[in-house]
Amino acid sequence: MKIKVVAVGNLKDKFNQLGAEEYIKRIKRFCTFEMKEVSEENLKKEPNASEILDILKRESVKLEKEIEGALVVLDIGGEKFTSKNFSTKIDNILMSNSTITFIVGGSYGIDEKIKSMARLRMSFSDMTFPHGLFRVMLLEQIYRGLAIKGNLPYHK
Amino acid sequence: MKIKVVAVGNLKDKFNQLGAEEYIKRIKRFCTFEMKEVSEENLKKEPNASEILDILKRESVKLEKEIEGALVVLDIGGEKFTSKNFSTKIDNILMSNSTITFIVGGSYGIDEKIKSMARLRMSFSDMTFPHGLFRVMLLEQIYRGLAIKGNLPYHK
Repeated sequence: MKIKVVAVGNLKDKFNQLGAEEYIKRIKRFCTFEMKEVSEENLKKEPNASEILDILKRESVKLEKEIEGALVVLDIGGEKFTSKNFSTKIDNILMSNSTITFIVGGSYGIDEKIKSMARLRMSFSDMTFPHGLFRVMLLEQIYRGLAIKGNLPYHK
Repeated sequence: MKIKVVAVGNLKDKFNQLGAEEYIKRIKRFCTFEMKEVSEENLKKEPNASEILDILKRESVKLEKEIEGALVVLDIGGEKFTSKNFSTKIDNILMSNSTITFIVGGSYGIDEKIKSMARLRMSFSDMTFPHGLFRVMLLEQIYRGLAIKGNLPYHK
C-alpha cells in the first residue's frame, strides 16, 4: 500500500515546509509514502490564455510520468467529501489498487488530459488557497483519513 | 477598520505559529488587526455529551466578551463562499461596521448562543481540519480577501 503525492512547484515558505514534513512523518506510520515535485513551467508574470494552455500541457507531460496506480486529481470543480467519507473513499480505492497518486496542480490548474485520466476529481473547498498551504491541507487530510480508517484517536 | 480573530485554544505546532504570523503581518498592511486566544475548557480526554455542552457554555462566556462590531462565526454547517465572494462579503460588512470579529471554535465547536449572535455563519469546507491549521487557512483567506478588494496581485 503506497500513497504518492505529486505537486507542481516547490514549497517556498518555511511554515509550509515544516507542516508538510510533519504530516508526511505521520502518514509514513501507516503506509509507504512518496512526495514528488515537478517543476513549474510559467516563465512569464502574466501569461495569456494560449500561453496558459501551453504551460499546462508542458506540466502534464511531467505529471503523467509520475502516475502510479489509481489517480486522484485535486480540482476546485471536483467532488466534495467530509473527512470521514474521504477516508472511506481512499480505503475503497486501495482495495483494488496498491497505489494511489494524488496530483496537485500549479498556479494555473491542471491540464484536461490529466483530469480525464483521474479515477476521482475532488475539491476541498470553493475557496482558492495558495498551493503551498493547500499541499499541507491535503497531507493533513490524507493523514486524517488513514487515522480514521485505523481507528486512531486524532484530535481536531 | 479593524479585523479581530478570536480563537479557542493556542497554536501548539511551530508551523502553524509561523504561518499565522506571516499572514497576520500581511493583513496588518491593510487594516488594524487583533488576534485573541481564549483558553480551552476541555479538562477530560473524552467528555460525554452533557460535559461537551458545559465546555461550550463556559467557552462562550469568554468568547462573548471579545466580540466587537459584526460577528462572523466559522461553522462547518455555515454558508460557503468562493474567495472572491468572501472578499465582497467582508467589504460589505465593513461598510456598515468599523470592526469584524471572526470566531473560531475549539475541539467541540461553538455554543449555539454565540452562533445565534452571528451576522454570518460561514464554512470553508465539508472537511474537518485541526484548529491550528484552520486558523492559518482563515488568516490566509482574510489576507486574500483584502488583497482582492485592494486589487493587489496575489499569486495562488
